[in-house]
Amino acid sequence: MPSEEIHGIPITTVYRLSQYYRALAGCGEEGFISSRELAGLTGFNDALLRKDLSYFGRFGVPGRGYRISELKGKIFDILGINREWKIALIGLGNLGRALIKYRGFEKKGFRVVSVFDKDPGKIGRIVYGMKVKDIKSLKRQVGKNGVNMAVITVPAPSAEEVIARVINSGVRAILNFAPVKVKVPGDVCLVNIDIGLELEKLSFLAVHKKNWK
Amino acid sequence: MPSEEIHGIPITTVYRLSQYYRALAGCGEEGFISSRELAGLTGFNDALLRKDLSYFGRFGVPGRGYRISELKGKIFDILGINREWKIALIGLGNLGRALIKYRGFEKKGFRVVSVFDKDPGKIGRIVYGMKVKDIKSLKRQVGKNGVNMAVITVPAPSAEEVIARVINSGVRAILNFAPVKVKVPGDVCLVNIDIGLELEKLSFLAVHKKNWK
Repeated sequence: MPSEEIHGIPITTVYRLSQYYRALAGCGEEGFISSRELAGLTGFNDALLRKDLSYFGRFGVPGRGYRISELKGKIFDILGINREWKIALIGLGNLGRALIKYRGFEKKGFRVVSVFDKDPGKIGRIVYGMKVKDIKSLKRQVGKNGVNMAVITVPAPSAEEVIARVINSGVRAILNFAPVKVKVPGDVCLVNIDIGLELEKLSFLAVHKKNWK
Repeated sequence: MPSEEIHGIPITTVYRLSQYYRALAGCGEEGFISSRELAGLTGFNDALLRKDLSYFGRFGVPGRGYRISELKGKIFDILGINREWKIALIGLGNLGRALIKYRGFEKKGFRVVSVFDKDPGKIGRIVYGMKVKDIKSLKRQVGKNGVNMAVITVPAPSAEEVIARVINSGVRAILNFAPVKVKVPGDVCLVNIDIGLELEKLSFLAVHKKNWK
């Protein structure tokens, strides 16, 4: 089973870039870091690190390693976090509410700028300073607020319709927490986080490790 | 880059089993379903489905397909969701609070039975009918309540210490939402859900699809 790839770059490389970036964030701005040092900080091996970076050009100074500030900037660009992602969060349940204030969001330019629900009991309420809007107004609001990413936390039965609405509104980047598989057009990027699947993976691992060892 | 495997079974097979199970849940208990029909319901192809199931023995009746109730029960067993998982949730921030009430948890035998934090301002409070306990009492509570799974929603800087504490308490199955990489002993199962990494993956995909097409 091949790993997921985009334009020949394994998605696992992308995950590691995020982790190199996190490690670099603790290294200041000055000076150099070797691939071995950076690999050590992240727990990956240095050959893999060099291969990961090689997909994106030539970096580093022979004998010295990578200039820290330059490598940070480069990974920032590669990951696309050098811009502001304006998020529409759709579905104001417990998970949606938690994500609006999730610290990981704001740190790297991900900002929830509007919140939508379809429940008349929630529409119009103020949540963390934002007025909850009717999902039916999504397309209009996307244009008005420059939304360029959607985070979906609606229940499974509504997810397909909501994702269709998001796509119709012109948003092309979707993070979906609803436990459904939805097919999207080729120009739309959909990443699923399915907490139930991860729990079942954990359950599977725990049971089989115990039984088969 | 090889896919993650356990005892020769690709983790992607495990994810698909969860999805076959979800599809079967809507099929009643009576009668048969062919691999083609079940594949159609899940969006995977039927050869892949037959291969996935073949890891776990021989199923199905030639010419008729799988007996629905039997296949459900079998996948239930394989995934280890034929038992009760008693969860200790550690870290009562926004995400922790959301997960306690996350619907996906209870449906398949995952139940939060105790909640821990280290903040004296939170310890002793009642949250969804459970008294928040001091993380220092984890080991004692695990014994008392039969906890066999931990869900970690503490901030990154505390995660390593908390995971060490969980392992020390005897729990061997951990779902970790803190954005850190922690090494665990071979008999411990650790599954990470790192929302920040998924956001950066989405950002990467969105930027590169746009630039490179």
